[in-house]
Amino acid sequence: MKSYNGKILEVELGEAPVFSTLELSEEDAARYIGGLGLAELLLARRMDWDLDPFDPRGVVAIMVGPLTGTEVPGCSRYVVAGKSPLGHWGEAHAAGYFASELKAAGYDGILISGASSRPVYLYVHDGEAEIRDASRLWGLGTYEAEAAIREELGDPKVRVIGIGPAGENLSHMASVIGDEGRAAARSGMGALLGSKNLKAVAVRGRGKVALHDEEAFRRAAKEILEKVKSNATCGLLKQHGTPVNVMICAYFGDIPIKNWRLGDWPEGIPGLNAEAYQTVLTRNWHCRACPVGCGRKVANPLGEPPGLADVTGPEYECLAALGTMCMVSDIKTVVAANDLCNRLGMDAISAGTTIAFAMECYERGILKEEDAEGIDLSWGNGDALAPLLRKMASREGRLGSLLADGTRAAAEKLGQGSERFAVHCKGLELPMHDPKAFSGWALAYGTTNRGACHLSATTYNIERGMTLPDIGLDQPLDRFASEGKAAMVKTYHAFSAVLESLVACKFMVYTGLTLTDFRSALIPATGKEWTVEELMECGYRIYHLGRLINHACGLTGEDDRMPERIVSEPYQEGNAANFVPDHQTMLEEYYRLQKWDEKGIPTEERIRELGLEEFAWMAERARG
Amino acid sequence: MKSYNGKILEVELGEAPVFSTLELSEEDAARYIGGLGLAELLLARRMDWDLDPFDPRGVVAIMVGPLTGTEVPGCSRYVVAGKSPLGHWGEAHAAGYFASELKAAGYDGILISGASSRPVYLYVHDGEAEIRDASRLWGLGTYEAEAAIREELGDPKVRVIGIGPAGENLSHMASVIGDEGRAAARSGMGALLGSKNLKAVAVRGRGKVALHDEEAFRRAAKEILEKVKSNATCGLLKQHGTPVNVMICAYFGDIPIKNWRLGDWPEGIPGLNAEAYQTVLTRNWHCRACPVGCGRKVANPLGEPPGLADVTGPEYECLAALGTMCMVSDIKTVVAANDLCNRLGMDAISAGTTIAFAMECYERGILKEEDAEGIDLSWGNGDALAPLLRKMASREGRLGSLLADGTRAAAEKLGQGSERFAVHCKGLELPMHDPKAFSGWALAYGTTNRGACHLSATTYNIERGMTLPDIGLDQPLDRFASEGKAAMVKTYHAFSAVLESLVACKFMVYTGLTLTDFRSALIPATGKEWTVEELMECGYRIYHLGRLINHACGLTGEDDRMPERIVSEPYQEGNAANFVPDHQTMLEEYYRLQKWDEKGIPTEERIRELGLEEFAWMAERARG
Repeated sequence: MKSYNGKILEVELGEAPVFSTLELSEEDAARYIGGLGLAELLLARRMDWDLDPFDPRGVVAIMVGPLTGTEVPGCSRYVVAGKSPLGHWGEAHAAGYFASELKAAGYDGILISGASSRPVYLYVHDGEAEIRDASRLWGLGTYEAEAAIREELGDPKVRVIGIGPAGENLSHMASVIGDEGRAAARSGMGALLGSKNLKAVAVRGRGKVALHDEEAFRRAAKEILEKVKSNATCGLLKQHGTPVNVMICAYFGDIPIKNWRLGDWPEGIPGLNAEAYQTVLTRNWHCRACPVGCGRKVANPLGEPPGLADVTGPEYECLAALGTMCMVSDIKTVVAANDLCNRLGMDAISAGTTIAFAMECYERGILKEEDAEGIDLSWGNGDALAPLLRKMASREGRLGSLLADGTRAAAEKLGQGSERFAVHCKGLELPMHDPKAFSGWALAYGTTNRGACHLSATTYNIERGMTLPDIGLDQPLDRFASEGKAAMVKTYHAFSAVLESLVACKFMVYTGLTLTDFRSALIPATGKEWTVEELMECGYRIYHLGRLINHACGLTGEDDRMPERIVSEPYQEGNAANFVPDHQTMLEEYYRLQKWDEKGIPTEERIRELGLEEFAWMAERARG
Repeated sequence: MKSYNGKILEVELGEAPVFSTLELSEEDAARYIGGLGLAELLLARRMDWDLDPFDPRGVVAIMVGPLTGTEVPGCSRYVVAGKSPLGHWGEAHAAGYFASELKAAGYDGILISGASSRPVYLYVHDGEAEIRDASRLWGLGTYEAEAAIREELGDPKVRVIGIGPAGENLSHMASVIGDEGRAAARSGMGALLGSKNLKAVAVRGRGKVALHDEEAFRRAAKEILEKVKSNATCGLLKQHGTPVNVMICAYFGDIPIKNWRLGDWPEGIPGLNAEAYQTVLTRNWHCRACPVGCGRKVANPLGEPPGLADVTGPEYECLAALGTMCMVSDIKTVVAANDLCNRLGMDAISAGTTIAFAMECYERGILKEEDAEGIDLSWGNGDALAPLLRKMASREGRLGSLLADGTRAAAEKLGQGSERFAVHCKGLELPMHDPKAFSGWALAYGTTNRGACHLSATTYNIERGMTLPDIGLDQPLDRFASEGKAAMVKTYHAFSAVLESLVACKFMVYTGLTLTDFRSALIPATGKEWTVEELMECGYRIYHLGRLINHACGLTGEDDRMPERIVSEPYQEGNAANFVPDHQTMLEEYYRLQKWDEKGIPTEERIRELGLEEFAWMAERARG
């Protein structure tokens, strides 16, 4: 099929690295699209899911999509996936300039297995690959490592993604960072690279994407681009990026505060909103082929490495996790903490949530002053963030070791009822939108394969007035209701699975693109006449394969539960006061609509419908 | 003094119009600057304040400032002033392209006295003036009249300000409109033009502003311009204009809702915020020599006149007055109502507030169904807005006549306790920021000469963290406290008086300019070495002269009171719940600091200090 390279690079690390090329079958591409879908398929076929996540036999996939490298806006993302340190399916996504460079280097993705005995990095360039020594890079922050690799290779156009100290030290919240701060943050993918002693992946390519019908494709791409550029929300995101959401979400009671205990925080929110952000902004930044350009740059808080004037500024999620969650309202402090997360290679959502958890433990006397190792863990103490993040990334002392793997692991070690305020699903800390403000989030968080996730079912848009008629979401839904939410989340998970396989950015949807639009470019790009329905069927297949992998890892419906704090502790203040989502009711309806059994396991019928018979054993195993 | 034309055009309307030129004395310019200051001085000298506002002997001033027509940003405003139909000092301000054109036509302002027996308009061009017939324009909306005049004069560069049906019908809330929707809206200045049968003022000029030291001036202007352009808030206002304030103000509990009865409205606010506005926006718009460009255009709701694709969209104030105040949350309805206000030449703040007042009267049975003349006056009925506005502008029927002059007049006619929810000060409806959210507004509204005003002391910025150290406002103040507010409002009134005499836009201050910055351009422009202190002394003089004029009109401290609803009905909801400002305490301190007596009348000592002996009789008269 055109627009694919048709090749996956396989790298087996070890004393003598082995390189090979996997030919991508047209049938697999047609059924799993690319990106997330192909990552799942290829890993499902070759992984032993019983293995420890850090077992050298484990495989990590880094995939791009059929529209990556073309002029269709927003398809410059990559997926990094594998068995998460949290014990089940893991995946992380980021945009920037890496994905298109990998595509230009001749591959649709990379599969990495084995492990090196010494630090190395992988360099892929125009159909060739080599493993290079990274000993002198080990221990470096992500920006320094990125710069050093580019310098060593003598090519400023080399694109690099890699890990920081957190990944080296196998923190379960270790991220993969590229483009000086663009984070594939969630579910600990950085630790997988760390376990393989793989510091980074550098790519450089000069290839062009071959298209089925160039002229028709250019017409379609141009039309899509114009649609985004003329869209209302495009202007909003262009000017403010995601920080514009701070006050908007606060208004709805959607931004979590003080470890999900406060429904509003009028004393703190103004210090973190878009107006405050203007005081730290240096410039806007955009990913490849993106007319929105929601990225923000802020002055380099540490001044290192010299010559790096500015760095990636915090997104909405980071402003909330390191700001409102910890009751820190000083934008400069949050900017510095977010920068540190990126340097150390840590997921800012999980890191901020884990610090908020520690602060609550401290307030309740579960963590005592002597446990805090000289750090004042009082709510709102911005001075605590940097030393805590450094300890967590390096597992330093009892405190760093306690917190390095996130709230679930910390609560398991601490006990004393702290489990009640470890706010995660499947071990992944909840992202920064609130099921107590939009009930759909509860179901979305509970049923995403990697754990509580802000990317898979971003259904709160449907609960705020958006519709997507071409996939049947033609009615806005009340944000507090339970009715209709199961169908909405079901459809949205499949839709997202398609987008994450195309590797399309969700913001393209917020700025007006539909699956019909993507299809209009995908057909002339590939030559395959997908219908919207067929694409959605792929979406359901991909979403279900992730679910089946989780079953192979031992997860069942038990793991779809929401934390107590979300379903039984309503807020007293703000515009979402006195409400908790009826997660159980929505979840039962969801299982029914998906044709899953009462344990949340897809029925044989459903597996057959989706053509997933090859992986039926995973469900069988969970059914016991 | 350079940068002034040194000439004021005097026009005496009547059977045979008389034109003359008043030479501006250097001393008057040095002591009153321009704009508001000179308008007050010239009117104070020639007006008999006992006259009815519509008496033909009354005088209307239209003034610009010393920096108008130069490259100093934001000085393209004009002031239209006279004795308000509300019975005291009246003034209204608007920016756009009229002010600089008047300056280029050779004048620093126009004084209009007398009255014409038939509709006319004034055409001023390069030092000449003529009165032209406007019979065929009478009854037209402001856009149509503007276009017709431009066509008649055969010069697309003619700039026009004028009145609509509301001004013709002497509505006390009639505005003056230029540039297809830029409104000098408040205190009924449009009715003064209407009472003189003066439909419009058209200007065209080719003159250049003569500067004292061109090179030094250009350096200063460039520096100021760069300062604004690099300012944080500039970006925010550029992208969203004032609609960005809807959700921000709602968050603070600062946007009035349901005639000042609700502290928050989570069901309605999202429909009116900056995101919703994007769905109606056609393009941004900027006044002359402004790097901010906060103006918004929206598609022409009526499609008339043909060829006018888009019109001025609602500002924050209008979104609140016609939206939240009336419980209407549909942006398209508010856009259409605001457009109608501009066409009819009505102050949208007073109009929206008056409709909200009528809705409350209807809810309480004071206005009955039979009084409503077929209009459903229920809260939130967007369909009521357009017919009500049309009735009010034309005084049609009992309802139109009841509401045409605003809430104070309507409550006086209705009685039955309706005075309690007629929310005005000195007859001018409160603008759309809430003294129950920022206590400074109470004092600012109470002590502004034209009545409750959102331009004179915009002190809520100081209560939100801004400082202006060069005029002594070096500490942000708590928004609910009373302490420090008297000194803050005192300083701010004087500062605003300077700005409104320079005719500088307040948004230049929000985007970083200080009085020191304006001074740096004013000195090379004029050749006069003002200090910041001397400018502030002018500000105090100007502010006090307005106060003295009010005393001449019969007002005293009694008229500084706040409506009951503001000082004794706290909100139950939102982030300003359970608070009312302690207006009386702040006001007493304010009188002391200003050296006013207990009746709020400036003492002889204060009058002498400010060099206002010429007008001391006004205070004497009020002291009785």
